[in-house]
Order: sequence, then C-alpha cells, then structure tokens
Amino acid sequence: MDVTDQERHDTRLDRFVDSYAERTNGMRVSAVRALFAVANRPEIVSLAGGMPNIKDLPLDSIAASMAEMVATNGTQVMQYGSGQGELPIREQIVEVMSLEGITAHPDDIVITAGSQQGLDLVTRIFCDPGDVVLAESPSYVGALGTFLSYQTEVVHIASDADGIDPAALRETAARLRAEGKRIKFLYTIPNYNNPSGVTQPLERRREVLQVCESEGILVVEDNPYGLLSLDADPIPAMRSFDDNVIYLGSFSKTFAPGFRVGWVLAPHAVREKLVLAQESATLCPPVFSQFAISNYLSTQDWKGQIRVFKDMYRERRDTMLAALEEYMPEGSTWTHPAGGFFVWVTLPEGVDSQAMLPRGVDARVAFVPGPAFYADGGGARNVRLSYCFPTSDRIQLGVQRFAGVIRNELEVMSTFGVRVSPTKSRRAPGPGPDLS
Amino acid sequence: MDVTDQERHDTRLDRFVDSYAERTNGMRVSAVRALFAVANRPEIVSLAGGMPNIKDLPLDSIAASMAEMVATNGTQVMQYGSGQGELPIREQIVEVMSLEGITAHPDDIVITAGSQQGLDLVTRIFCDPGDVVLAESPSYVGALGTFLSYQTEVVHIASDADGIDPAALRETAARLRAEGKRIKFLYTIPNYNNPSGVTQPLERRREVLQVCESEGILVVEDNPYGLLSLDADPIPAMRSFDDNVIYLGSFSKTFAPGFRVGWVLAPHAVREKLVLAQESATLCPPVFSQFAISNYLSTQDWKGQIRVFKDMYRERRDTMLAALEEYMPEGSTWTHPAGGFFVWVTLPEGVDSQAMLPRGVDARVAFVPGPAFYADGGGARNVRLSYCFPTSDRIQLGVQRFAGVIRNELEVMSTFGVRVSPTKSRRAPGPGPDLS
Repeated sequence: MDVTDQERHDTRLDRFVDSYAERTNGMRVSAVRALFAVANRPEIVSLAGGMPNIKDLPLDSIAASMAEMVATNGTQVMQYGSGQGELPIREQIVEVMSLEGITAHPDDIVITAGSQQGLDLVTRIFCDPGDVVLAESPSYVGALGTFLSYQTEVVHIASDADGIDPAALRETAARLRAEGKRIKFLYTIPNYNNPSGVTQPLERRREVLQVCESEGILVVEDNPYGLLSLDADPIPAMRSFDDNVIYLGSFSKTFAPGFRVGWVLAPHAVREKLVLAQESATLCPPVFSQFAISNYLSTQDWKGQIRVFKDMYRERRDTMLAALEEYMPEGSTWTHPAGGFFVWVTLPEGVDSQAMLPRGVDARVAFVPGPAFYADGGGARNVRLSYCFPTSDRIQLGVQRFAGVIRNELEVMSTFGVRVSPTKSRRAPGPGPDLS
Repeated sequence: MDVTDQERHDTRLDRFVDSYAERTNGMRVSAVRALFAVANRPEIVSLAGGMPNIKDLPLDSIAASMAEMVATNGTQVMQYGSGQGELPIREQIVEVMSLEGITAHPDDIVITAGSQQGLDLVTRIFCDPGDVVLAESPSYVGALGTFLSYQTEVVHIASDADGIDPAALRETAARLRAEGKRIKFLYTIPNYNNPSGVTQPLERRREVLQVCESEGILVVEDNPYGLLSLDADPIPAMRSFDDNVIYLGSFSKTFAPGFRVGWVLAPHAVREKLVLAQESATLCPPVFSQFAISNYLSTQDWKGQIRVFKDMYRERRDTMLAALEEYMPEGSTWTHPAGGFFVWVTLPEGVDSQAMLPRGVDARVAFVPGPAFYADGGGARNVRLSYCFPTSDRIQLGVQRFAGVIRNELEVMSTFGVRVSPTKSRRAPGPGPDLS
C-alpha cells in the first residue's frame, strides 16, 4: 500500500468497532440518503423532502419583536430553564390544542426538542428490546428509525383509505399476544399521514380507540399537520375522546422547524417519567426557542399565518394532483390528501420504486421510495411525493419528469418482457408481465 | 372514600406502571429536588445551582445583530438543518477549541442540544445494560444520571487533589476485567471538576491517558469550564495529546446556556454513529440556536466577554474562599478551585451532609449534599457550594449561614455525644465522637 491507500485504510478502519452498544450495530447510513446528497443539486426538482415552506413568514416583524424580547428579558430567555419546559408556552399550547378539540392542563405537557424528541422520549420510557410497537402501513420513516434504535419490533397494521383497519388491529394484537410478545403502543398519524396523506375519519378514530381500549393498547397520536387542513375543518384529535392517549404536537409545520420545539401531552404519571427522561437527555429543552415561539404566538397573527400557509399548500397540492392526472401512465394510483404535505403513489404492477430513484435523479427529479416507510420490506411499488417545498411550476415539472421515468420503465418492460429488478421487491399477486 | 379522596387516589395511581421499560423503573424524583423547589424562595441564598451569571452580556447589541440575522436570513435559520449541525458554527468551534491546544476538523464535530445531550448520545452508542463507566470521585451528577439511565454500572476511581489516581485507575480496570465486566469508557472533567473544583495538572493528564491507552479504555473528556480559568492560562485539553479522546464542549458557560448548544469532537467512525443517533433523537440539533451563537461569535467580542466573566467569577470565588476561612468550624476542609464554579467542602468527622440540607433551608441557605455526585453512596461528609450565580454579598451571607448550621450540629454532637444520623452515611474510619 502506498501512503494514500494506507490513509484511506485508516479512515475506513473503526478501532471502536468492538465497543459499541448492541443498538448501535443496527445504525446504518441508508443508500437513499447517499443519493439525496446528489439530489440536492439545484437542477433537480426535489419532491423528496418534508421541509415546510416558511418564506411567507413576516420576518421583519418577527425580528423586531425577538430583538425586543432579548433586550428586555435576555437573562431569562438565554438561561437554563425547566426540564418540563417553560410555563408560558405550555399555557399557549393548551390554546393551540383546543383548536382540535383537546382539553388539557399545562402541567400535563412536556416540551421536546422537536416532535422527533417526543418520539424518542416516549420510546425510551416504554420500550425494552424485543417489545412490539404497532404502526400504520405505511408509517413515518423518522418514527420507525427511532423505534428500531430502541431495538423494538415494529409490526405494521393493515390500513386502507381511512387509515388503520380496526379488525386487522384486533387480530394482529391477538396473534402477537399469543406469540408471547409485549405490545407497548400503537403509533398513528390520524391527520394527513406521512407518507400516505390518508386521514382517519371521525368514526374510524372511535373504532381504533375502542379496539385499543379493549385490548389494553396505549395510543401514541402524532399530529404535526393537524392544523394544515386544506379542504375542511380539522377532525377532532383522538386525544379529545380519550385522556389516556399520548399526544405529540409540533410547531415545525405551523410556524417554523428550526427552533426545534414540539411537545408531548400525556397522562400525569407518564408526564413525570418524560420529564425525568428529558432531564437525562438534555437537562432542559431549548429555552430560547421556547420563548421565541411564545413571543411569536403572542405578538403575531399566528392563526392568520396558518391560513396563509394553507392557501399556499392547497395550491401546490392541487397542482400536484392535476399533474399526476395529466402525466402518470395507466396502472398508477395515488392518494388525494385533505391536508398535510404528501401524496402516496402506487406504481403500475412490476415497477420497483427503489430502482426508479437513480433513474429519477438522472431525469432530474427526486422522491422517496416506499420501503423507507415500512419496517418489514413493504412499499416496493410505492413512492412518496411531497408538494410542500417546491413552487407549483417546479411541482408540475417534477411530476412530469417522474411520470416520464415510470413510462420509460413500462416501455422497457413491455419490450423485453419483465425486467429483472435489482432490488428485492414483494409484488402483490395478480396479472401482469411478471415472468420471474 | 369521598370524591376528593377518590380523585387524589386516581392521580396517584399509575395505570401504565406495568408498561414501562426496565430503564424507567430506575428513574426517581430525588428528595433533594423536592427540597430545591422550596430553596428557590428569594430569602434563601442558593449556593446550590450551577447557573452561570449572564447579566453582563451586551444584550442590546446581541438583540440588534440577532434581529438583522432573522430579517436577512430567517428562512435558513428557522428551517430544518443538518443532523450533524451547521457548518459555520462547526468551523468556529474549531477556533474555540484551539484556545485549549486542540487541533480538529469541522467534519469531526457533532452539535448537540447542550453538552448534556452529548453525554446522552455517547452513552447511547457505546453502552449496553451492565456495561461499566468509570468516573472520578466525585463526578458530575447529570452525567451519573445519564449513565445510570442506560442501565450501566458506574465505578468511581479514587481521586486526589490532582484528579484521578492513575494507579487506582489501573488497578480498578484490572479488577473489573477479572470480574468479567466490560468497561466502556472513563468519564472525566479535567478542568475545575464539577463538583470538586479540582484540576488535573498537565503531567497527571498524560499519566491518565497512558493508563487508558495501555488498558484500552476510551476517554470521554467533558470540558464545559475550560476557558473559565481564574488564575493562570488553561492547561491543554487531554484531546490535544490524543486524537482518540472523545471531547465534549459547551457554550453554556462561556456565552449562555438557554440556546442549548454543545458539541462532541470524536474520531471519525464514532462521529458517524453520533450523527445517526442525533437524527434518531431530534432529526437535527436546534438550528436557530446554532445560527444565533454563530452570529454572536462573529459579531461580538466573545473573547473579551470571557475576560469579563472571569473577572466576575474570580471575585466571587475569592469571596467564597475568604468566607469559608472566616466562618467554617475547625475540622472542615475545602478545595481551592483555579477556575469554574464550585468549591467542594469536607465537613467535620461525623457530620452528615444530607441531614444538613433541611437545616440549611431553615437557616435560609441551600447547597448540594455530596452523595448526589456519587453513584455508590459516597460523599456523606461532602457538600458542593457554587459561587457562580449569587453576588459576592450573598455568597458571604450564604457561607456564614452554612457555617452556622455546621457549628450548631457540632455543638449538638458535643452536648449529646454523637447524634443518630437520619440518613445512611459511610463514615471514614478515624478518631471522633462516633459511638454508634
């Protein structure tokens, strides 16, 4: 080896490889992420990310009132704070949640470093290795990652156009219990699910809660998009019917994600454990951020701003749905989200979504292949497209390019019979050019 | 039961008690914390907390430059960011660390939600239940809590006025290995240890590193106070001699804690794991906070501000040491910190520090009893006094009250023979009125 090779060898070598915890061995940089580094080039239309578009925020006004806050109250807003989070923002969160029918007390709220940390802390206090977490099919990739990092087993519950199938939930719970497994909670995003865009109607929420009640399953309701309803008023949160639901909220989509402020509303005993876990994790959640958001809520027209966001996202969603209608080949289907950021596409029989990603990048469009949203290898024919961040023009162009990639694939398939997929896919049974 | 009793019963009852993870069963609200709620009353002089005094920060100037940042760059500083942390602040951190002799690359730094989260993530990637973490005697209470929350066993290494005893470190490591235990790392605060105020001299750092190298023990160096040297220039960090040391830094004491920004400098392979753990824990560390601190470092005279802080803390430390000299009864000893926030007091033979806390609160002074800083019940005769937050007048008054409590106790002891301690204490052998 010459020096350069030696150096390269040293960089690859991990002298700590035998020292890591068991949980760490499961942590891997995904191939998808490596591709996303490429996908961030400006010529590529990214329908992949879940970043909110915050350019419509009144920056000058926010800047001025934040400066006032720092000048007059700097020694408090820049100091250590409570492990539970600051009282003023917890009081305001009670008001925010009331918009979705929730009655709560500020003392039952714990502030977290983004809703993601809420997922982390809830999993931390409930899950031992081998415990089971139930989730929708498909479910949020970031939540799945956290559940798996605590060495849990994630079991997906069959879901339809109205969300979780209550009968499947009951059957799966019974089967898992018969196998001697411990179910710790059901994780669900009832509003505009990430990635599927599906919303659970009121009646379905009640049914799911009923099954969970009778089966003794704790419900963790994750609701980052609830106030971003694009067609009708928000449906009451599951927590509004059942005080034992653990509810995760966030300011990332209704204001801005960079402050990293979310919250958990939990029954009192659970809330106490969450505060202890938060102190161990960070001493206290970001204090300045909490005061900055509290200040935003009390000095700006935050409800008016949400209306502005909704108008903007509605236009983008409509653009995406119209473009899909115009460009996608026959055999494709997709969801029609009533809110949130995402459309979930099912590709024609035989087309593998992961194999499409590098071709998409070649065609200057990025998206997230479905398997990211399954812990069990599902989603091979699915793709998540997001309409939150690019402008309508770019969405139109991106969908056109995406549809072109799929059309090309179908042509190749019909010319050569079936292609040999480079990734494992679990195809649904049924007619189609599948000769493998 | 009447309704009120029933309600009270329901509140106490935890219906989730059988659902928690094993790690959660060890989480308890400490009795000390309950007392601190009382100790926050204004008439009480608190020598208990570790809050920095940030009232000398140039608030108007910080407010103005922050407003400018939000107005011109709001859509970036309020957006999601990198799981590793933003590049501009990582570049500035390289410069900050160079003041303590460290040569590093921005790519080897991970930003954390305060240094506490650095402890959490390092423990997360290295420690399985039952693994051993080595720590100084005494060691930082927040670190011990995190290590224990990952179900590790914390073993204290005998330490003297120069920090960790290298011979004891070697012997303890050998003994633990002979018992079949897995040592994951040595956790140490070489500068102005919290709580002892002890500093490891240069030669001792080299000796400790040598033992760790030959025994194959990873070193985690926690250095929140390093730049707050009050008597001489900082001693080079352990990381400056050994690139395999994992180094934890923080802006909480040199700027302000409310932003919750710390960092971990780690060997490349470890850094990769830390980023994956950070993404799972929070998606990304607080983005706005990172830009706010980056902006502070580039627009304000941060080195001059550290000199202002040092002058202020020096005066307070000197006041505390003089007051201890003036008021404390014979048989007490204490450390003379060359920096940082804390003095570690050893009480006269037979005086139990935990029993003194309620009496201290009665006498309107608060402090932290020594056992908080031991995982093994040590520290019964010790107390941590902090001089960082109260003014010199209050420090003088607080030490006078504290000394009065101890003097009273000694009088009671000499009148009635030995008192029966209400808490378990492990007294050092030696002469004294110990008839129990």
